[in-house]
Amino acid sequence: MTPAELKAIISDGLLSFPLTDFTADGDFDPKGYQKRLEWLAPYGASALFAAGGTGELFSLTEAEHADIIKLAVETCKDSVPIIAGVGYSTRIAISMAKAAEKAGAAGILILPHYLTETDQEGVARHVAAICKSVGIGVIVYNRNVCRLSVDHLLRLADECPNLIGFKDGVGEIESMVNVRRRLGDRFSYLGGLPTAELYAEAYKAMGVPVYSSAVFNFIPKTAMQFFNALRSGDSATTTKLLDEFFLPYVAIRNRRQGYAVSIVKAGARLVGRSAGPVRPPLVDCTPEEDKMLKALLDKLGPQ
Amino acid sequence: MTPAELKAIISDGLLSFPLTDFTADGDFDPKGYQKRLEWLAPYGASALFAAGGTGELFSLTEAEHADIIKLAVETCKDSVPIIAGVGYSTRIAISMAKAAEKAGAAGILILPHYLTETDQEGVARHVAAICKSVGIGVIVYNRNVCRLSVDHLLRLADECPNLIGFKDGVGEIESMVNVRRRLGDRFSYLGGLPTAELYAEAYKAMGVPVYSSAVFNFIPKTAMQFFNALRSGDSATTTKLLDEFFLPYVAIRNRRQGYAVSIVKAGARLVGRSAGPVRPPLVDCTPEEDKMLKALLDKLGPQ
Amino acid sequence: MTPAELKAIISDGLLSFPLTDFTADGDFDPKGYQKRLEWLAPYGASALFAAGGTGELFSLTEAEHADIIKLAVETCKDSVPIIAGVGYSTRIAISMAKAAEKAGAAGILILPHYLTETDQEGVARHVAAICKSVGIGVIVYNRNVCRLSVDHLLRLADECPNLIGFKDGVGEIESMVNVRRRLGDRFSYLGGLPTAELYAEAYKAMGVPVYSSAVFNFIPKTAMQFFNALRSGDSATTTKLLDEFFLPYVAIRNRRQGYAVSIVKAGARLVGRSAGPVRPPLVDCTPEEDKMLKALLDKLGPQ
Amino acid sequence: MTPAELKAIISDGLLSFPLTDFTADGDFDPKGYQKRLEWLAPYGASALFAAGGTGELFSLTEAEHADIIKLAVETCKDSVPIIAGVGYSTRIAISMAKAAEKAGAAGILILPHYLTETDQEGVARHVAAICKSVGIGVIVYNRNVCRLSVDHLLRLADECPNLIGFKDGVGEIESMVNVRRRLGDRFSYLGGLPTAELYAEAYKAMGVPVYSSAVFNFIPKTAMQFFNALRSGDSATTTKLLDEFFLPYVAIRNRRQGYAVSIVKAGARLVGRSAGPVRPPLVDCTPEEDKMLKALLDKLGPQ
Repeated sequence: MTPAELKAIISDGLLSFPLTDFTADGDFDPKGYQKRLEWLAPYGASALFAAGGTGELFSLTEAEHADIIKLAVETCKDSVPIIAGVGYSTRIAISMAKAAEKAGAAGILILPHYLTETDQEGVARHVAAICKSVGIGVIVYNRNVCRLSVDHLLRLADECPNLIGFKDGVGEIESMVNVRRRLGDRFSYLGGLPTAELYAEAYKAMGVPVYSSAVFNFIPKTAMQFFNALRSGDSATTTKLLDEFFLPYVAIRNRRQGYAVSIVKAGARLVGRSAGPVRPPLVDCTPEEDKMLKALLDKLGPQ
Repeated sequence: MTPAELKAIISDGLLSFPLTDFTADGDFDPKGYQKRLEWLAPYGASALFAAGGTGELFSLTEAEHADIIKLAVETCKDSVPIIAGVGYSTRIAISMAKAAEKAGAAGILILPHYLTETDQEGVARHVAAICKSVGIGVIVYNRNVCRLSVDHLLRLADECPNLIGFKDGVGEIESMVNVRRRLGDRFSYLGGLPTAELYAEAYKAMGVPVYSSAVFNFIPKTAMQFFNALRSGDSATTTKLLDEFFLPYVAIRNRRQGYAVSIVKAGARLVGRSAGPVRPPLVDCTPEEDKMLKALLDKLGPQ
Repeated sequence: MTPAELKAIISDGLLSFPLTDFTADGDFDPKGYQKRLEWLAPYGASALFAAGGTGELFSLTEAEHADIIKLAVETCKDSVPIIAGVGYSTRIAISMAKAAEKAGAAGILILPHYLTETDQEGVARHVAAICKSVGIGVIVYNRNVCRLSVDHLLRLADECPNLIGFKDGVGEIESMVNVRRRLGDRFSYLGGLPTAELYAEAYKAMGVPVYSSAVFNFIPKTAMQFFNALRSGDSATTTKLLDEFFLPYVAIRNRRQGYAVSIVKAGARLVGRSAGPVRPPLVDCTPEEDKMLKALLDKLGPQ
Repeated sequence: MTPAELKAIISDGLLSFPLTDFTADGDFDPKGYQKRLEWLAPYGASALFAAGGTGELFSLTEAEHADIIKLAVETCKDSVPIIAGVGYSTRIAISMAKAAEKAGAAGILILPHYLTETDQEGVARHVAAICKSVGIGVIVYNRNVCRLSVDHLLRLADECPNLIGFKDGVGEIESMVNVRRRLGDRFSYLGGLPTAELYAEAYKAMGVPVYSSAVFNFIPKTAMQFFNALRSGDSATTTKLLDEFFLPYVAIRNRRQGYAVSIVKAGARLVGRSAGPVRPPLVDCTPEEDKMLKALLDKLGPQ
């Protein structure tokens, strides 16, 4: 798939990132993962991020990452394009990106670099180095230590023709408007905050109508329903879902830092699609929290 | 004016906060201020915040504050309601609020308390004490050390019937959606970030269609044009104004912390409506920056 | 007292800031305050900050401030010099500073300006304007929005001969070492973090052997004992007091933001020297916390 | 080497972390690295951290890391113990730690986990999992997202007998005093801020007399001179070196985020011991900055 084709695909429709399945011992569980993808693929996401943030990229070894991407591409080859999350250091990210390209991934998503302080110039060099290592399309995730100014994005846009997407995980309106207006059609833009549904109306109004849904992992029907209501301007439905599900859901999620992933694994467990425990440094939700989430899910009905 | 009447007024139409006029020595200049209000009143703002943030409340003595509010109310009594900014400590804010009520102000806007660390409980007590000191309507400015959670807002809504407005100067989408959905019609909501026009589309999408415009102080026609385009969904106009004026304007404003006010005084100076220098701890824009701003104003044409 | 004399006094010995007495209704209680000063004066502090942070400057009106300083100077005129905290806006701080000078205060302590964002240049102008308004010595409190770089301090040192003290409330070692080494003997330096005893060994090692003690307000004997042990290098005593009192004390203080003052009022209450309640936006300690503090005080024995 | 032996070694004497040598293309340069260790070993550091922060651990692949540790251990087997930095995710850190143990490293230093938000509980589980994977001694680096409270450290001290060191890279005095007093002799403590010499007097006063020196990489003689002066209480020497070298050095370092490493590579280059360029996301110092650093080095004289 060319970068331009990927750009077209992610400019329309709902995106999601599947959970990564672990066994009780925390090892990667390929069978569970495959079943997960087979279950999710028909629900209509336009692309899936394998080994993204919700897929606990930040816990994976390089070998596990390669296995996951290969399996995702194979499983979904006739249904939905796979975009591979890559991260850690520049060299590890490049190695992951090349392996993903070789395995047939449609593109990559660059998660922030590891640990060290640096400035925008350093971040831009890191991103450029990864872009140049592959021919497939690249999306940069604006988040944490990776925050790119308009000036650096303009330079990267020039320097890296395959950089075709900007996913925002920071949520600063002024910056997002600046990037959106100044970069215009050069990029495709994605909302990338945890529980992106809460941000969806505001992002759509800023010219960012697409986002990636974490709850798609356990309530794919509701996730699509929200997305379609947003797209068609059916605010009665989006408002109802915000009030009845997303706001109380986020209240549980905010009980502990890191729960943005843990609560998705809890949701999968509760709908009979367990992906196993989270890995450290994350911590699983408590039984009490599972119960609170269960009550919310029961109201939504079967998916 | 009853709190309910004030609520109705600020729920519709553009708001603004006039600059406060100082002489070259930094003293309050009542004549200049009166002329300013007479000039601005006919442009169609639905209410004016006297001695708000853009009016450098944070530099005023209590006596100056009383003079300003009195003069504003008298000057605008037949044209537009005046809402008085109040701040500093609880007792100073109460004293300011009572004086404003006595002078005939339609309501007050509570700016954050001074200096000390505290928690939400302490902030809520501070806000409640000010609300209870007057009968007119009160708007709380969510900003800086005054950040109120949904739970504390719900309590304040119960406890303080005259608390009728929530002005957001924080800009966190998740919090704003939470407050907006959970407090519903109990409050009127205002966008209150510096250069609110950049935030206007996103806030409107979150159910906050009203904001206060700082640039109204020097380009009132453009400010009204943007607001009307936003209201009617004319995104061609809002987008054009963002691209041609607001984004480059904000780039100048961001050259120095505190310029959110200084650049408005620069704008007033450049359109022949000087309000004098800013007071410390603010710093006026440089001649070079004035020139940059002048170039932007020339493109907009006469107001 | 000349600025140079003040500088000599605060370069040696323990400093403290008395609580401000409020009645049950929160009004200033001059009789209680006078008794407090009479009680504390003989314990050997080399200067007292009236209406400083622990004295809830951030809650006072200008009129109350004037009363407090006048009363403090009169009460202590034969025992200990009074330094007046000043704050809020530039003009209010100047007004407070002039009143304090007229009342006979030995110097002033500038607390940070109110609310507005600004940069170092703006902060420096604010500080300079206050310094120039009086002839007595001035100490600047490096804290919150008032953080001065070495370059700005060098300029202020040139511009304001009566600026003779730097009190640090930020606690960044690198900055403190920079300021201490680069400004050398031009200033006197004070440790000004809440519960300064925890910082005392580290600050002494950086060339800042003097600090202001908040606990002096209720355990003046222990406060002097710690200070004298620190001065003489008796680390067995400082360590014992840290382990047995200050560390568990700070654990209570950290239960709520703003307790740095509330817990001192609790301490005064528990030793029979109540200064009344704190004002909003602070919140008093709970009975349970009073009990925890009482247990610590009992171990220290009578003062 | 047992954990207890490692603890004894790092409780006394100067520590350092050698740069990692890269070729002009950014590949690991084993010959250069070996020469570097042979050069540095005789200067008297009591242990060397291979692949630590200054060794750009955050840029290494697992394979490179294994090569580096192996080479360091072999090269220094008769001179100085090697402690291996480990990082990224829990599983990668464990894999690195096991390889280091197998290669003969004396211990490991745990750098913070990658990317994800979590709380203290999650961080503690991450640290515990790594400790349990090896038998050699472990030092935890308190820095960035890895900030451990006293309570979690007490639990880890119980749970992980081979956790014997706490290296602080946060620099908050209150926390450091708390940890130092409450954990007592259970751990060895190291100062771990960039340019630790600036912090050395304050940390020594808090009971943390040992630190790791980055400048040891290019001025090992001066680094030892400073350390010995600190140890013997020769403050004339430490003060002189702070004033003449370390403070102006830090002023260069602070010109760009990430220069804490880049300037050490610049220093090595300037003394004829080049370790090659830094890897992205770091950026090398400019020729102008090299010149500024050269002027400082010239004053120190030959090493």
